[in-house]
Amino acid sequence: MIRLPLDATTLSEAVVNGETTAAIIAETFLERIQAQEPDIQAFVSFDARQVRADAAQHNSRGLLAGVPVGIKDIFDTAAYPTQFFSPIYTDHQPSRDAHVVTLLRQAGALIMGKTHTTEFAYMHTGPTRNPHDLTRTPGSSSAGSAAGMAAGFFALALGTQTAGSLLKPASYCGLFAFKPSLGLVSLEGVKPLAPSFDTVGWYGQSVRDLHLVARVLIPGFAVPDIERRPLQLGFCRTSRWDQVDPDVALALEQAVDQLRSAGHHVSEVRLPDEFAGVFDDHQLINDCEGARSLAKEFQQHRTQLSPSTLAMFERAATTTWQQESAAKARLADLAPRLSELCQPFDAMLGASCGMVAPVGLESTGPSDFIKFWGAFGLPQLNIPLRPGQAMLPVGLQMIGRFREDGRLLRTAEYVAAVLQGAIQE
Amino acid sequence: MIRLPLDATTLSEAVVNGETTAAIIAETFLERIQAQEPDIQAFVSFDARQVRADAAQHNSRGLLAGVPVGIKDIFDTAAYPTQFFSPIYTDHQPSRDAHVVTLLRQAGALIMGKTHTTEFAYMHTGPTRNPHDLTRTPGSSSAGSAAGMAAGFFALALGTQTAGSLLKPASYCGLFAFKPSLGLVSLEGVKPLAPSFDTVGWYGQSVRDLHLVARVLIPGFAVPDIERRPLQLGFCRTSRWDQVDPDVALALEQAVDQLRSAGHHVSEVRLPDEFAGVFDDHQLINDCEGARSLAKEFQQHRTQLSPSTLAMFERAATTTWQQESAAKARLADLAPRLSELCQPFDAMLGASCGMVAPVGLESTGPSDFIKFWGAFGLPQLNIPLRPGQAMLPVGLQMIGRFREDGRLLRTAEYVAAVLQGAIQE
Repeated sequence: MIRLPLDATTLSEAVVNGETTAAIIAETFLERIQAQEPDIQAFVSFDARQVRADAAQHNSRGLLAGVPVGIKDIFDTAAYPTQFFSPIYTDHQPSRDAHVVTLLRQAGALIMGKTHTTEFAYMHTGPTRNPHDLTRTPGSSSAGSAAGMAAGFFALALGTQTAGSLLKPASYCGLFAFKPSLGLVSLEGVKPLAPSFDTVGWYGQSVRDLHLVARVLIPGFAVPDIERRPLQLGFCRTSRWDQVDPDVALALEQAVDQLRSAGHHVSEVRLPDEFAGVFDDHQLINDCEGARSLAKEFQQHRTQLSPSTLAMFERAATTTWQQESAAKARLADLAPRLSELCQPFDAMLGASCGMVAPVGLESTGPSDFIKFWGAFGLPQLNIPLRPGQAMLPVGLQMIGRFREDGRLLRTAEYVAAVLQGAIQE
Repeated sequence: MIRLPLDATTLSEAVVNGETTAAIIAETFLERIQAQEPDIQAFVSFDARQVRADAAQHNSRGLLAGVPVGIKDIFDTAAYPTQFFSPIYTDHQPSRDAHVVTLLRQAGALIMGKTHTTEFAYMHTGPTRNPHDLTRTPGSSSAGSAAGMAAGFFALALGTQTAGSLLKPASYCGLFAFKPSLGLVSLEGVKPLAPSFDTVGWYGQSVRDLHLVARVLIPGFAVPDIERRPLQLGFCRTSRWDQVDPDVALALEQAVDQLRSAGHHVSEVRLPDEFAGVFDDHQLINDCEGARSLAKEFQQHRTQLSPSTLAMFERAATTTWQQESAAKARLADLAPRLSELCQPFDAMLGASCGMVAPVGLESTGPSDFIKFWGAFGLPQLNIPLRPGQAMLPVGLQMIGRFREDGRLLRTAEYVAAVLQGAIQE
């Protein structure tokens, strides 16, 4: 695994100031791709000539001037096929870029190619490997974007999250990741799965980089000043903490201790028992909405869908409309209560995943700790911890209040600064 | 204006039973289009050869076998350009159909062409005229779909609604229209405006036809049996009833009287004062989300946007993040209270619009009575009244409980049966 020497913020400033060019940056990243892509398999569509052509024409302007970006193959792109890792869409070529891809280009980003996703961003996995250990999964579904980030193939990458698709790969690959509040970022040109949860998110090399992308993809986005004072943080294990491996739990608890030692307040937050049903309600809604979103593929191309996607249709078929409505009503009832529980805190902390990246490429492990908060549309962020060289990356999840994405980013900056020594390098 | 002899349900049954063919139906509708389209201007893209080719290849199967459908030019289509009534997208040709267009085709529908929309389904109007009076607007933004329905150019049509875009044209053109609960129908391939409200909806010639389309576009959709008993209906004027013209108010009150005479219960429902802010909150959210949804067009093609769309950006620019969040929080707080108010009723009744179609093509009148309920994502339906030949159509709005779309359709069937004599022919 290569550690990038330059983050997106630094790269774009250097391009704008004339200290380097998009073309020079492109060559640096293309070299890495050439060297390691055969092992990693982050890309499903990659064209070095296209990258060089884009770089050669670059005007050296924009918030992301010359910054190489990887795009999950669930976003439409006019310059590359968009295939959703489905044989139904082999060589499928959209006529235009997804909204966020256009915004990235308008900000000067350099699109490096399309990265592997699971089939329709659901469960069926592709060939991508985890740069930290090639025998292990990078997580799913934003597998190629995360693995490519960890391998240094680009400085930023786009992903999406419905259950755990952005933060799980971040946790397994040791990346900063940000999933904004539901509804803030346009989904135009993104293949829908479960619209109650579907959200565009991104990977960066620092909280500062995550913030930079937010400014590009959320027009009008502003981060509030939080006065320099002890942060008020919650630490919430949820009802599924028994899924957390002891060494992961230890790493997270050590991070909490570090924050306390630095003078910040971290309170344990216990959730009322009613919240134990959120995990199942998320899955039920995901199944029902997923089956509706992929109805046209199911009706005409059933034999080309993977077993895990077909299983989703089977579960949806045995779920009644009333059960789905009841699940949604329960989440709607719980949302203001959760909001009240989060109110005293600048951010909530927890595990992103209960384990490090498991061995094997076909199964990527549960997403419970991620989908719990995603069920309520809250902004989520992964801080990549690496307690020691012998240990694989562990993800510290940070959760913000709904639509207070700026506060979450600002709080994460302070948290990352305190944990600096323990952060994935 | 031509009254269609056959509705979608009858047409498709006739095709499936071999009593007619898609080709014969196509010719009937093409004749009408040829005769009246120069006056109406419902279509932005129309190709009789394409329609004939599709009809000739038809397999006479499907819930919508051989049924001619108009598609608002805000839905992507592979066989026709998709231009959003914006010069930025002149001749823009998507590579694939929007999800719902695919579902219509898979159900056997015959796509007749793309119908005029306002620019990006916002306010800037096109050339379409109201078939009931060519000096008047058909309403916006689903103008071409509604006018084409009223002129008999197709048997069904797709529209979308963010504020009043589906029900206003239905009210002005005398059409049955159905806007499902937020989130039930896939928006894949539909240009977003304000995702908190954006919903696909459709026009039909009867409640039965509206229901037929729901079965196609909402996989798994089922309508509950409601035992034959007096309906429990609410009649809700909202705080803006002073906008209702006296003759429109009279037509609606007469409809209520007819329902009561038929033995149904209609209670006046008064909303608490807090609901008076919903209209402004809807507009504020619409502005802010619209500005984000169209950010890429604004950044690169500002000079090609209409004054009304630019005004939206101006309002958004002077609205703070906190104001938008506060508006959303107020709606979220009111939603369960409104739900409680609606709970005793099979459906709520009200005005769709306070006036009949106004004279002129540039301004289409307010959407307050429609967006009030749409702000909460509730299912909405228009029953077209025509109290007398001298009077233009008036829209009776019916509103259902959230995600109880089946109950609303069933209730509307009974209501339409009672009002039969007063319904637009």
